Formats: sequence, C-alpha cells, structure tokens
Amino acid sequence: MTDILTTATETAAGAAEEGGRIVLGPNQYGKAEVRVVKVTRDTDRHEIEDLNVTSQLRGDFAGAHLAGDNSHVVATDTQKNTIFAFARDGVGSPEAFLLRLAEHFTGSFDWVTGGRWLAESYAWERILAHGQEHDHAFVRSGQEVRTAAVVADGDERHVIAGLKDLVVLKTTQSGFVGYPKDRYTTLQETTDRILATSVATRWRYRPGVELDYNATYASVKAILLETFTERYSAALQTTLFEMGQAVLERHPEIAEIRFSMPNKHHFVVDLSPFGLDNPNEVFYASDRSYGLIEATVTREGLEPAPGAWESVGAFC
Amino acid sequence: MTDILTTATETAAGAAEEGGRIVLGPNQYGKAEVRVVKVTRDTDRHEIEDLNVTSQLRGDFAGAHLAGDNSHVVATDTQKNTIFAFARDGVGSPEAFLLRLAEHFTGSFDWVTGGRWLAESYAWERILAHGQEHDHAFVRSGQEVRTAAVVADGDERHVIAGLKDLVVLKTTQSGFVGYPKDRYTTLQETTDRILATSVATRWRYRPGVELDYNATYASVKAILLETFTERYSAALQTTLFEMGQAVLERHPEIAEIRFSMPNKHHFVVDLSPFGLDNPNEVFYASDRSYGLIEATVTREGLEPAPGAWESVGAFC
Amino acid sequence: MTDILTTATETAAGAAEEGGRIVLGPNQYGKAEVRVVKVTRDTDRHEIEDLNVTSQLRGDFAGAHLAGDNSHVVATDTQKNTIFAFARDGVGSPEAFLLRLAEHFTGSFDWVTGGRWLAESYAWERILAHGQEHDHAFVRSGQEVRTAAVVADGDERHVIAGLKDLVVLKTTQSGFVGYPKDRYTTLQETTDRILATSVATRWRYRPGVELDYNATYASVKAILLETFTERYSAALQTTLFEMGQAVLERHPEIAEIRFSMPNKHHFVVDLSPFGLDNPNEVFYASDRSYGLIEATVTREGLEPAPGAWESVGAFC
Amino acid sequence: MTDILTTATETAAGAAEEGGRIVLGPNQYGKAEVRVVKVTRDTDRHEIEDLNVTSQLRGDFAGAHLAGDNSHVVATDTQKNTIFAFARDGVGSPEAFLLRLAEHFTGSFDWVTGGRWLAESYAWERILAHGQEHDHAFVRSGQEVRTAAVVADGDERHVIAGLKDLVVLKTTQSGFVGYPKDRYTTLQETTDRILATSVATRWRYRPGVELDYNATYASVKAILLETFTERYSAALQTTLFEMGQAVLERHPEIAEIRFSMPNKHHFVVDLSPFGLDNPNEVFYASDRSYGLIEATVTREGLEPAPGAWESVGAFC
Repeated sequence: MTDILTTATETAAGAAEEGGRIVLGPNQYGKAEVRVVKVTRDTDRHEIEDLNVTSQLRGDFAGAHLAGDNSHVVATDTQKNTIFAFARDGVGSPEAFLLRLAEHFTGSFDWVTGGRWLAESYAWERILAHGQEHDHAFVRSGQEVRTAAVVADGDERHVIAGLKDLVVLKTTQSGFVGYPKDRYTTLQETTDRILATSVATRWRYRPGVELDYNATYASVKAILLETFTERYSAALQTTLFEMGQAVLERHPEIAEIRFSMPNKHHFVVDLSPFGLDNPNEVFYASDRSYGLIEATVTREGLEPAPGAWESVGAFC
Repeated sequence: MTDILTTATETAAGAAEEGGRIVLGPNQYGKAEVRVVKVTRDTDRHEIEDLNVTSQLRGDFAGAHLAGDNSHVVATDTQKNTIFAFARDGVGSPEAFLLRLAEHFTGSFDWVTGGRWLAESYAWERILAHGQEHDHAFVRSGQEVRTAAVVADGDERHVIAGLKDLVVLKTTQSGFVGYPKDRYTTLQETTDRILATSVATRWRYRPGVELDYNATYASVKAILLETFTERYSAALQTTLFEMGQAVLERHPEIAEIRFSMPNKHHFVVDLSPFGLDNPNEVFYASDRSYGLIEATVTREGLEPAPGAWESVGAFC
Repeated sequence: MTDILTTATETAAGAAEEGGRIVLGPNQYGKAEVRVVKVTRDTDRHEIEDLNVTSQLRGDFAGAHLAGDNSHVVATDTQKNTIFAFARDGVGSPEAFLLRLAEHFTGSFDWVTGGRWLAESYAWERILAHGQEHDHAFVRSGQEVRTAAVVADGDERHVIAGLKDLVVLKTTQSGFVGYPKDRYTTLQETTDRILATSVATRWRYRPGVELDYNATYASVKAILLETFTERYSAALQTTLFEMGQAVLERHPEIAEIRFSMPNKHHFVVDLSPFGLDNPNEVFYASDRSYGLIEATVTREGLEPAPGAWESVGAFC
Repeated sequence: MTDILTTATETAAGAAEEGGRIVLGPNQYGKAEVRVVKVTRDTDRHEIEDLNVTSQLRGDFAGAHLAGDNSHVVATDTQKNTIFAFARDGVGSPEAFLLRLAEHFTGSFDWVTGGRWLAESYAWERILAHGQEHDHAFVRSGQEVRTAAVVADGDERHVIAGLKDLVVLKTTQSGFVGYPKDRYTTLQETTDRILATSVATRWRYRPGVELDYNATYASVKAILLETFTERYSAALQTTLFEMGQAVLERHPEIAEIRFSMPNKHHFVVDLSPFGLDNPNEVFYASDRSYGLIEATVTREGLEPAPGAWESVGAFC
C-alpha cells in the first residue's frame, strides 16, 4: 500500500521518549453493507442481481484523523449514493461492478490512492411454476454466498473472487489415522467417518487477464464440489489441498487460492448403553468446538501480493 | 390440555388476600435442539436425514416445582438419549419420528399425559459430480427449513407440518392502492413494486388421516410457490390468503394453515439527484422495519384445536 | 379475541365436501421492529430511550384477504410513522407508550377492534468519565433486554411486562437427584453442579391497576436475581417456581408470570486421562442441546386470560 | 512467519507453464471455539473465568496436505484436550493462558514453529442480593467482549489485547461538515448529531514487557470511554485517533493500536408531514448500511510487525 503515515500532532513527551511521536498508521474508511438489488426488465423475462456492497477508501486522510479537517473525506453517504447510481447501468458481475467503483473513486479524488471494495451476492432461482421457469418470480437459493473483492493500490488492481457457506458432507470415504499421540491425546483412529465442512474460499486472479467472471465462478464451484466428492480424505488438510490444486490446474488465470474450512464434527453416538449397535448410522452434529483448517494453495515462483489480502481493521 | 394445576405450597397471606394461593400453572419441559443426523447405508447409495429435535413433556410435574421432588422428572438427558436411540431404527419422516417419541413418552410414564415434540429438518442434495448424482456426497440445500410438530394431549395427537425461511420475490405484478389515508400517512400508491417475503407456515393435518408426510410436504411447497407466482398481488394479505386457499383446496387432509410473512421491503432508490431515472430497476433492500402479515386460513365449521397451537413459554 | 371469521369466497366443491368453505381465520398485521430512539434534552443532562416497537392490528380485514380491497388496511408504513410521531411526546415507559398506540389505533379506525403492540427496550448507562456520570455520553448495558406487550381486545387491555437474555449462573448450591431411571438413562446424580440459565419471563399485570411500570420492572428484576441466588436448587423447575412465587408474593398487582428458561449445561470435563483430578473446577459450556424448562406461576382462582397470550403467527 | 512453502507434488504441465508447480502456501490449523469455564473455589467466595479459546498451529504440515501423512498433525482434538487440561491450573489472564499454550505446542513438537492462539472472554458480575455481592452467584455483564491473541513465530511472541462490541453513543457534541461535494453527494452538513459506534479494537504490547494484563485492560477500556466522551467529534475518524492517541500516551508498554468502528447511523426522523417539529429528539436507528472507519494509531519509527496481524484464512 502507498505510504499513508503522516505527520503527527505533537503528543506527550513521555510517550515520545518511549519510541517517537504518535502517528496515524494504515487506515481505510467507507460505507459497509449497501444492499442493492438490480432488476433488469428490458424484456418480460426479468433478471435480478442481489448484492451487499462495501466501499472503503485509502489515501491521504490524515487531516480528518489529526485535525478534524474533512476536506478529503468523501462522505460515506456519497459512497453509498455512488453504488446505487452505478447500479443503474447494471451490475454484470460483482467483480466488474467493483472495478468500476474502484476506477471512479481513485479517478475522481486526487488523494484517494487506493481502496477496497467488497461484495457478497445472493443467488435467486426462477420459481418452477407448473414445470416452467417463471419470468419474474424467484426463490432464494441458499446454497452458498458468492463473494468478490477488488483492492486498488496506486495503479495495481487485485481481483479476488470467492464463496462462503457452501456446506458439504460425505458419509464415508474419510478417515483420520497416523497422527502423533501425546499425554493429551484421547482421539481414536478411524478409517470411516463423516466429513463435513462449510467451504470458505477466495481465489486471486492474475493481473491483467480478461475473463468471464461469472462463468469462471461456476466452473470453480463445480471443481470444488467434485474434488471434495471423489477422493478418499486422509485428512481435511489433504482434501483442502486437492481442491485448491484442481482449481489451479484447470484455471491458469487464477494465481492462488485460499481456504478456511471448519471440520464440522459429526460424532458417532454410543448406543451400547441402550443395547443397540451403531455401525456409523446415528451421529450427533456438534456446534462447537470445531476443527479449523486454513491454507493457501499457490504456484511456485509466484510474485506474492500481500497488499491484496491485508486488512486495516482491528484484527482478522 | 389436561388440568395440571396443582396443590400449591402455602404462601404469604398478603398474596392470598389478593386472589388466592400461588399455584403452578401450565408447564412443560424437556430437551431442546438435539442435532441428530441419520445415515442409511444399506446399499452404496447412502441416504441422509438431518434433524434438530426438541422434546417437551407435559403432565404431573408439581413435585419438582413445588417440593424439589424429582421422582417424576424424566431427565432431559434421558429424553436426548431416547431421541438418538430411536433414530437407530430410522427417521422416515419428521412427523412419523415425532409420533414415535410421543407414544414412547406418554406410554412409558403414567404421569406424562402429553407433550410437544418439534423438529426442524435440513435438506441435502446429492452433489453432481461430472453430471452424476453422487452416492455418498451431499451439499446442503439452503432453500428452506422444514418444520414438524406433534402435540399430544391425552389420547389426542395433533400433527402440524410446516416450513420457514422460504424467501421468494417477484419483480412485478404487485401493487398496493386504496388504503386509508390519515394524518400519519405518507406512503405513495403503486401498481408496480417488488414483493418479497420469507414464508413461514404451519399446517395442521386432520386427526386420524393416513398420509405420506414427505410427499404431502413436497406438494404443499410447490403449491405455495406457484400461487405466490401466478397472480397479481393487491396486498400481501391477498397473496397469503390465496396461498392458503390453494393448499386447502388441493389437500383435504389439511384442516387449517397458518402463515407469518414479513413484507421484506425493497424501496426504489431516488436517483434523480444524480440526473438519472429509475424505472423500477434499482432498489434498496431494507432490513428493518418490515411489514408483518399473519393469518390463518381455515374451513367453515371446523372444530377448533387451540391445544395444538398454544405454547407454555414466556410469550410468543 | 373478537370474532373475525368472515364470509368466505366460494371455493372448490371438493374442499367444501370435506368440511365447508375455506374461510379466513384469526389474523393480525402491522409493522415490526421499528427502531426508535428518543432523546430528551430539556436540560444539559440528556436522557435516552431506545426501543424496538412492533404494531399489529386486529379487526375486520377480510376485504384485503379475500378481495384485494385495501380500504381497511391502515398501511404498515402509516403505523411506523405513527410510532415515530408519538415518540415526539416522549416514551415514559414502554408499557405506557404501547398503551397510547393501542388507544390511537383502536380509537381512530372503526374496524380496528384490537391488536398487539410489542416493545423491546435496551438499557444505556451513563459513561463514567473520571468518576463522574456523563451528561450526554452512554454505553450500552448488555445485561438483559426489557420487553413489553399490550394486547387490546375490544375494551380489554392486557399489559404484559418482561425481560429476556438475563444470563445467570451459580457455581454451586445446585443438584439433581431422585429422577426416574429407565433403559435410556445414563445421567449420573449430583448434588453439586453449575446451574446456568438465560431467564426469559413475562408477567401480566392485573387489569385496571395504576402503577409505575419502570419501578416495578426494577423491583421484579431484583427479586428474580435474589431468588435465583439464595436457595439450593433441587432442579431448575424448583428454582423457576420459587422465582415466580417470590414475584407474586411481593407484587399483588401482578396476576401471573411465565418463564422459559434453558438449562445451559456446564459439563465437568473428565481430566483423568491426563492424570489430573477435576473437583468441579473445569467445565465445558455446551451450546446444544440444552434443557428447556417452561412454566406459569399463577394464583388460585384467577380468571384466565388466554387472549393476552395467544399469537396468530405460524407457530410458537 | 517462517517459510512453510514446501516441495509440491507434480501437477499438470499446463499449470506449470503458467508459473511453476502448484505448491502449499501459508497454512495453519487447529481447534476453534473451545468454551472453557474455570471456577476457582479455594474459598467460599468463588471466582469464575469464562473463555472461548482457539488454537491454531503453524509449522511443517506439508505431509498432511500433500501426501495424506498425518504424522505431524497434532489432532485438533488433542489441542482441545490440552486447553481443558491447562485450565486446571487456572487462567489468570487470557493473555497469560494463551502464552502458556504457545509455549507448550511450540516446545512439544519440533515441527510446530509457531501458531496463533485466540480467546474471547466474557465478564460476569456478582449478583447483588439484598445489597451484598454474592459469593457464588453471577450475572453475565454484556457490556463488551474482551479479546486476546498470542502469535508465535519462532522465538517471537506477539501479545495483542483487545475488545469488541463496546457500544457507545453520545447525543450531542458531534458533527460532520466541510467534506467534499460531488455529483453523488446529498448528505447535509450538521454540527449536532448523535454519534454511535460499536468499538472493536486491538492493541499490541511491546515485546518483552512485564505487565498486569487484567489491570491494563481495565485502564485501556476506561481511557477509550473517557476519550469518546469528552471531546467534540468533528468526524468519527477524529474521535478514533484521539482514542488511540490517549491510550498510547498513557500506556508506553503498548506499541500500536488498531480500531474498526462502524458509524451506527441515527437519522433524525422528518416529522414535518405530521405537523411536528423534531429538534434532534426522535431518531431512527438504522441497521444497514453503516459507515465503517478503520485505522491504526502507532508510534513514529516503530518496527512494524506484520506477522502479528496477518491471517492465513480465506480473507479478512
């Protein structure tokens, strides 16, 4: 990110002795969760696009932080208005829409040198009425939430697509053996268990590649589902890597892919006190605690892009 | 409900003067939200049933409330164990499963004269891998949550099926005109708006009817979607009644049906300050406040069944 | 509730044969979750009242349901506006505010014969700045949510106060013994366990009593906390009843009180595999499943008020 | 972070041409949200510590990801057990507890070179029964959630304290003027508005400093509240910086502090259509969209610690 450290106000000498004046570090601000729904009604067969958009600007905002000078502060209300106004021309894909917002804000205000724009999008299916897909009635498809992010840093544009809340489960072909045992280990090995997770993933496109974001999204989702499904899982780590590897193999336009996947435990219930066996048929689905497996699958020799991923918020 | 008022402990005279001794009123207790997952693996093509079950007993529990005597308190832990043990024999349908639980508890303990058993069930679709529905890999279908309830009161059994979180939207063929205007009315009439709601509904089956609960559920859901879709909506009230009417017409085994449907407002954004028109294309999806339309659609002359619907909790 | 069954539209003969024409049953509608914040700034010491208000009207709304005739439908938007307008004169107490709304709607529209008005209210504490309670800066106190309801049915007015999300825990002086054991019982008896719950309660005031709703609320909350605290708990049922009894004994203006209290299980962790004892010091706080204890504490000979408690929604 | 890129499996030539073999990038795994409650009962006056702990290990886990070899995978179940076992010796402070976990895992397994340990902790107040703080009965204080994190990277230890969900509001002494106006700006300037936010903040302690984590936490919280309260707010950005500055001035042991603060909009309701004025007395509290202000307040010349803050998950 461009250097946004700024000349600080003078502060207490005591603090200064401990390591210098107190200064503003990295910062971003904007409007979060603008719920914009775009209906395209050029023909009787309406289309719907349903987004939750966040706009955050980065640049020279020292005046506001240090001196109460808002002359650089593009109001978050203005950012919201801009999102609605831009939707008038259509969305197309979340990624394309966010890129338009990035160009607008960095192009309109000298002191805006970058920013981050995020979108969730929610899928709607046409209602099947008497076997026909209806022209203007829809039912929300809850299978997953699609995510998109555009990070601008000077002339760079990082485009990151993704999804979350894609809950998948296999009733067999999963096990966990061969792990180290120590004083605190009570887990029993198994070669047949339920494997369930809620996939959250983000993949970063190579810069400068032209592509059909919607078609690529559909392809990546299909690859993720197929790879989860078709191989024995020796550990959720193995399955995660295979999912990422399959995506990168078939999509050279994707530079790297990150995953955060909970291991949603399904415990076999011990029915023996009731005189019953339980050959992996009755499970207790546990809420907490859960395993949490997180990893990046990337390419050897890839130029890293830390700025694409970093946040300015309190923590993550 | 059977009379469960009980002899009370002696209490302060002051209170007595105001209207009698303090006594125990209606009560129920049990185990809530038992997350049981049943896998049927008789063949390589596994089946999965995923439920969240609540069991609540009614009867003579005065001893526990008034005297700390637990000799009648079937432990909530025991109720949980019973749910898991019964799942060993399969679920079949949520309604059938709850009926088995009702028979067990009312049949096993003299002082348990009734109760309420609830289930949510979550749908899983087979993952399509290379065009084939997979044998043992599933993805959670988030479209709606199926609900079921069995209420036992002595020999009576009320069976109530339902669903919630079925989010539907139509981009046109909805309006709202002709409402009364008073000092506080600012709403403008419209004959073309988005209508969106999240359907929550419960329907009560006639007692003693044999039926295929799963097939009936699928049929009712299809009727709800089609009726929402196919007619102009003069008000959400009208649409609600038409939905209920269509269900009752085609399912004589259903005695009555209740709905609770929010009007999820989608407001047309005023783009005129930005020099843009907005012919019902860009909307703001609002979270709160929302309209809330609730009604029962029933049959003339129907014997009411208040006990099927009432709760004992703090409020509802 | 007043009879709101209405003349129905003609429907299919098949349905009629099964039990009469399809008709509209009980119904209510309105605006839910109006988030109104009232600041009183007569002096430099500001006051804040923070409410989430729901207004639902009952009466003759058959036209809207059966014929798309909205001439009786006081728009939910109008109800929202009315809530904001009435807040201009102050809130006072949630109960008093809801009573004003009830009078307004039932008094302004002939066909509105009743309704239900609900409020949640959120407490704010003055920020302590350098030991002083500040005049106009507040921090949200998350201890519990106060609730209120007014139900109007013709000339009757039911006033129901309450609270929810009051999470309490005692580390000892709780046990559970003497319960029946059957085939499915594995629970061990204990005379020393953690007892934790999240109190949800509603109490109904006697009709026609003049009282200070805010002071009574504070008193009831204190009684609930003290009674939970000071006696050995033989079962959560016993503790629930004692809490209700204590409230009714000291508040003759309260007719009855209902509770819904989860037993938030804290399980002693078995540390023996690690060579450690665990004398009730390390617990696992479980999310689900949980016990659920619900009961009414009332007065002998009390005129029941089912209309005060019943809902029209899909279920509860 | 230590280099955890690993030798990759051979993958499709097509991908290799695009930029090298597919390899494992940064990764971490563990057990999330272990809900441990520690009661200290050495005397009749019991103490309670209530935590939600997450443990994530970093190091050489290539075998599991690339080859299904779990010989390095300390089971997440083992991590959970360790958390419970360590709680037997007491918690003390969340930070101290996490540091113990970090030492254990990095010291016990050669290939564990680092990790991240997180905790939320929930405050309980003693119940006031008849004016006395009770020995063993508590009520959950919902004012904020305390957070802690320890990040280990080789021999480095980053300790980050924080809080979230601290909801504060001032009814005056806040404005917003002087911002740039463009085509999309409709916001009106104001010098008197409600300012409300939910503070989420994390501060990083200087390495190697001995301190009382609990006392420092209480002091920082008090400074945050006082600074929010006592100055006119020209923008939430200004207030944020002042809050951070005040913390750093008075706590030289804190290296830097980050904030993520929503601007929780309270809009003045236009009551003029109803013939009423509204001199900043009646507000509508909006849920979405909201402003979002994020920034770091730091010290000039400070050695940056990117590893302390970065995540490996899908995004943040």
